[in-house]
Amino acid sequence: MITGHVFIATSLDGFIAREDGDIGWLLERDDPAEDHGYDRFIAGIDVIVMGRSTYEAIRNLNPWPCSRPVLVLSATLGPADLPPDHAGKLRISSKSPQAAMAMLAVEGYRRAYVDGGRVIQSFLMAGLIADMVITHVPILLGRGRSLFGASGPEIALIHEQSESFASGLVQSRYRVAA
Amino acid sequence: MITGHVFIATSLDGFIAREDGDIGWLLERDDPAEDHGYDRFIAGIDVIVMGRSTYEAIRNLNPWPCSRPVLVLSATLGPADLPPDHAGKLRISSKSPQAAMAMLAVEGYRRAYVDGGRVIQSFLMAGLIADMVITHVPILLGRGRSLFGASGPEIALIHEQSESFASGLVQSRYRVAA
Repeated sequence: MITGHVFIATSLDGFIAREDGDIGWLLERDDPAEDHGYDRFIAGIDVIVMGRSTYEAIRNLNPWPCSRPVLVLSATLGPADLPPDHAGKLRISSKSPQAAMAMLAVEGYRRAYVDGGRVIQSFLMAGLIADMVITHVPILLGRGRSLFGASGPEIALIHEQSESFASGLVQSRYRVAA
Repeated sequence: MITGHVFIATSLDGFIAREDGDIGWLLERDDPAEDHGYDRFIAGIDVIVMGRSTYEAIRNLNPWPCSRPVLVLSATLGPADLPPDHAGKLRISSKSPQAAMAMLAVEGYRRAYVDGGRVIQSFLMAGLIADMVITHVPILLGRGRSLFGASGPEIALIHEQSESFASGLVQSRYRVAA
């Protein structure tokens, strides 16, 4: 049994990045002195699943920011797109959400951090997300890459906890109702 | 000088109603025993501005739910659409947001409750909103009538306060940055 978990920041109008992928608006408002719980979250995670856009945003970061093995789900990227120095840290797969999670479960993983708008949407649609920590950033972007999109299934949530920060970030944790 | 004020509930994915206008999902989750601050909010309001969809959702309610004079902004409705028993309680106008607010200011109004997705979007775009109380309801609707849309201006907000309720509602108040 493996479960998917979301930890993501979004503008108040539901965008996780500008259309060109820019997240400067988020970094400007993210006070590094505040503890938004990422370390606690990642401590409970043993594998990371992300989409191509998220991967391309971080692939050239040095040092490599992911402290867990990464599975990139993409229909267009292939193993040849793997930088040689990332071997062993990440894999690229064109599997469906269900098949990808089944593979990770067989490999012994139990809790996957699911990251990126389209991947989160497809995992929600497949019933593979157990809970989500959503942080609202005090800005309306007006347009951009959508966190949830406008063609998803209806999903009941259970609110577990909320916290607001001096920076203006408001973070809420939701469980996906069974 | 007149200012616009928003007080609205939205699904976590940013919809204020299903595509057909249904808000049953909201009413089911709204615990009437909880004080979500509407009475305090409306006490500071002297006029209500809404769009056609919002008006049509409430026009047949008996008793009439609006405790302030109402201005309905619509390009398609005219004075003939006014039910006779609403005379004096509401007006219909095709004015632009700016012209409508200018008219209300001349009439002596000072604080307008601006309600309905498209009207809120057009008032935000015109710089006529001073603050917003946004209540997130613990559900993903997947599709529906959008609160903010996907073609608005970028607007910086200042977070003032957040509160969560046992029902799972999470309410945050934002000022629009100058």
